[in-house]
Amino acid sequence: MNWLDSVKFDEHGLIPAIAQDAVTGRVLMVAWMNREALALTAERKEGVYWSRSRRKLWHKGEESGHIQKVKEIRLDCDSDVIILQIEQVGGIACHTGRESCFYRRLDDNGQWQVVDAILKDPHAIYESPKHEH
Amino acid sequence: MNWLDSVKFDEHGLIPAIAQDAVTGRVLMVAWMNREALALTAERKEGVYWSRSRRKLWHKGEESGHIQKVKEIRLDCDSDVIILQIEQVGGIACHTGRESCFYRRLDDNGQWQVVDAILKDPHAIYESPKHEH
Repeated sequence: MNWLDSVKFDEHGLIPAIAQDAVTGRVLMVAWMNREALALTAERKEGVYWSRSRRKLWHKGEESGHIQKVKEIRLDCDSDVIILQIEQVGGIACHTGRESCFYRRLDDNGQWQVVDAILKDPHAIYESPKHEH
Repeated sequence: MNWLDSVKFDEHGLIPAIAQDAVTGRVLMVAWMNREALALTAERKEGVYWSRSRRKLWHKGEESGHIQKVKEIRLDCDSDVIILQIEQVGGIACHTGRESCFYRRLDDNGQWQVVDAILKDPHAIYESPKHEH
């Protein structure tokens, strides 16, 4: 049995995939994979996702150079979430130029606060300042 | 503006929420929240989710005692994924009796391998041996 047959993709043929820094444990981003993206991720050992906005395969880093070297792939008990242990090249996973996409924290006053710094101007990361997603 | 209005729930009114151990950084589980579950999570500072299978609010630990004390709530750049930093009471997040739901790893031969131990028999965790999800 092919390992991909154990994976439960949703009604859109997608599964959420968490990218976690293999060394620090920081959760860097969550994106979606279809079967082909997951197969390519395992084959190349680099993060490949399905861009829901662009409706095409998205080899993370294809524009920014911020590719993800995949050290480990895990599946959860319900077979409907993937987690990758990665090395994030460039140290920036988020299209805003931050290390992680999870840079807003809910404070005690019920406000989302931006708590992480921009490490690199997105205009300097992408030739055209668009979403990589 | 209410902080909940910044959160993008999907076409089912849900958002995926990652529960990460606040101390070790281990990703323990991913479950879904509707607006009410997220509001309750913030209010009680305990993990409350929406059970898609039972179609009702699920206060994690309500059967098992394995509640989640929430230390921090973050939102990602697209406002469509939540991450919680938690203390997992009992040290078991998975209904299989394991610390984490992510206990299967893809090996070099293209097989999912169970690599984490069962810490407690699920029959001893739940009065009736059913899925808590």
